[in-house]
Amino acid sequence: MRHAVIMAGGAGKRLWPASRQDKPKQLIPMIDGKSLLDVAVERLDGLFEPGQILIVTAAAYAEQIRSSFPALPGGNVIGEPEGRDTAAAIALAAEIIRARDDDATMAVFTADHIIRPVERFARCVQEAIETAEAQPQALVTFGIRPTSPHTGLGYIHFGERLGEGSARRVLGFKEKPDHHTARTYVESGQYYWNSGMFVWRVDTIREVMARFLPESAEKLARVGDAAKAGKDITNLLAEVYPQLRRISIDYAVMEKASDVLMVELTCQWLDVGSWPALADVVDVDADDNAVVAPRAVVLDGSGNVIYSEDGHLLAVVGMDDCIIVHTPDATLVCNKSDSQRLKELLDMVAGRFGSEYV
Amino acid sequence: MRHAVIMAGGAGKRLWPASRQDKPKQLIPMIDGKSLLDVAVERLDGLFEPGQILIVTAAAYAEQIRSSFPALPGGNVIGEPEGRDTAAAIALAAEIIRARDDDATMAVFTADHIIRPVERFARCVQEAIETAEAQPQALVTFGIRPTSPHTGLGYIHFGERLGEGSARRVLGFKEKPDHHTARTYVESGQYYWNSGMFVWRVDTIREVMARFLPESAEKLARVGDAAKAGKDITNLLAEVYPQLRRISIDYAVMEKASDVLMVELTCQWLDVGSWPALADVVDVDADDNAVVAPRAVVLDGSGNVIYSEDGHLLAVVGMDDCIIVHTPDATLVCNKSDSQRLKELLDMVAGRFGSEYV
Repeated sequence: MRHAVIMAGGAGKRLWPASRQDKPKQLIPMIDGKSLLDVAVERLDGLFEPGQILIVTAAAYAEQIRSSFPALPGGNVIGEPEGRDTAAAIALAAEIIRARDDDATMAVFTADHIIRPVERFARCVQEAIETAEAQPQALVTFGIRPTSPHTGLGYIHFGERLGEGSARRVLGFKEKPDHHTARTYVESGQYYWNSGMFVWRVDTIREVMARFLPESAEKLARVGDAAKAGKDITNLLAEVYPQLRRISIDYAVMEKASDVLMVELTCQWLDVGSWPALADVVDVDADDNAVVAPRAVVLDGSGNVIYSEDGHLLAVVGMDDCIIVHTPDATLVCNKSDSQRLKELLDMVAGRFGSEYV
Repeated sequence: MRHAVIMAGGAGKRLWPASRQDKPKQLIPMIDGKSLLDVAVERLDGLFEPGQILIVTAAAYAEQIRSSFPALPGGNVIGEPEGRDTAAAIALAAEIIRARDDDATMAVFTADHIIRPVERFARCVQEAIETAEAQPQALVTFGIRPTSPHTGLGYIHFGERLGEGSARRVLGFKEKPDHHTARTYVESGQYYWNSGMFVWRVDTIREVMARFLPESAEKLARVGDAAKAGKDITNLLAEVYPQLRRISIDYAVMEKASDVLMVELTCQWLDVGSWPALADVVDVDADDNAVVAPRAVVLDGSGNVIYSEDGHLLAVVGMDDCIIVHTPDATLVCNKSDSQRLKELLDMVAGRFGSEYV
């Protein structure tokens, strides 16, 4: 059967103050009142049954997410006792799925992106699932045709086409390149962005994990066994999780595996990892202001990102290219070009006014 | 006996959103948690007994002010049924005082300014009172040596010195001049700023009012008579006040009276009528940020005015010369150079979100 896993573990300091330690960016209302996780779950409508959608998140967010998605069985929201990067999260999800279904294909999605149009996304996912089912030993990734020499992303070096569809062999994974290298990649036409989303048979990913990450795989197999036996896995998870190797799925598995394929994701794929990015995913006004706030007035200003979850009035006069974010206890006013300095700001805030603000 | 009148009627749209229709700028905490009216009352310590200090304000603010100043008798806070400019407010105060004291001298102060040092203010007031007592027919104004060719102020053209002190004859009042004229005034050394503060005997100002503003004076005399008879003046005030001529004391009286003197107010005299002016009256940090907020962080920004009455955190990154004002229901982010556009903004806000915000 087909299963989906949404990885929703990140904290998202770059969306402070809307995101906090206890409120990750995936849960912030952003698009028509919906969070990125809302949108990520909705995107799977018609592709996966709600009972076959798993969300892997930090244990601290699990309860909040369970109550946000009443259509999902509570056991489908899996809280990691601590973050151990994507290899651990994916391996854990694979164990939960194999405990339920011994003939499972699983698709792994992130919750960090806006992907549209959603109909095309569905067709690409369908193709990837069919590819993984036709090539049961393969690990299938989603590659995205690069629109810029982005240095913050990994790249997939692809080879020959397999058949009628978009599926191709993968020759290699390249981690975040420098700008010059990224330009070479983009100009060559042989490199796609690595979306961090995958499809594979569960028994295949488990075999590959056992080969390349044997200690972690063995520990998590105990969790899978316990789940299969119908036991509560909470304590076991708390015991083994801190012992897992902290490594990404790309480093641990994808770079080493031999049978890797790529299906093209022919969608807009927009990271909403920082405030300036919000302007790319919501409708902007005639002056290029991205306003996600029920009550805001901009008098003579352009290029601003203005955000408030509640009805607090934000009145902006004569400002350009600013980020203005209101929350009940903290407000950020930041020059757009300084948005990468939020971590530095949060250190100051925590030092002066306590960690409850960060 | 000596009486003081503080005029505290203005609404202060230019200090929105801290000031509102129901919360005039004089009541906003500004200097070490004190409002301008707090500071104006404190400034009279040692010069006037609390029982001899009157505050004239809009009726809507009277109760709020009474509870803010428990040391003042409740009857000393006089609520105007509607604003009729300074001639009416001063004439009303004169009537209230003459009802209590038939040998009164009254000093009229504004609540809009920071005046310091306070010891020097006290000496200047003392001199003005002594001048008015020595010249019982005279109207005594406070003149301020101009520090710039300010076009938003009235000017006093002064003449010969009267005696040992700073008192001089006044040759004329000049309303807000254009820039060129203002420069001529300042360079001549014969013009001082008109502070809008005065000292005179109550019977003198009543005579002058009766001459130059006879209808208003006669109506207000009925209020004075009622007060003298110990009656509640509320209804009478509501009846006559709307019929008073709406005119400033300068136009109505000072420009026409013949026996006008000026005493020099040798103080810093700072209008806090708009947010940028806040930086002139509070301590600024090393980067020239004026921060009047219990919890604020500025990372790499200068020349900002940052204001919040409550503990809401204001975090500012990479911003220069901005006004950032937080209140529980509305936040303003405004380029300092656009601070004069608040009225325009408030029209937009009221139109879109209702008058409760303005």
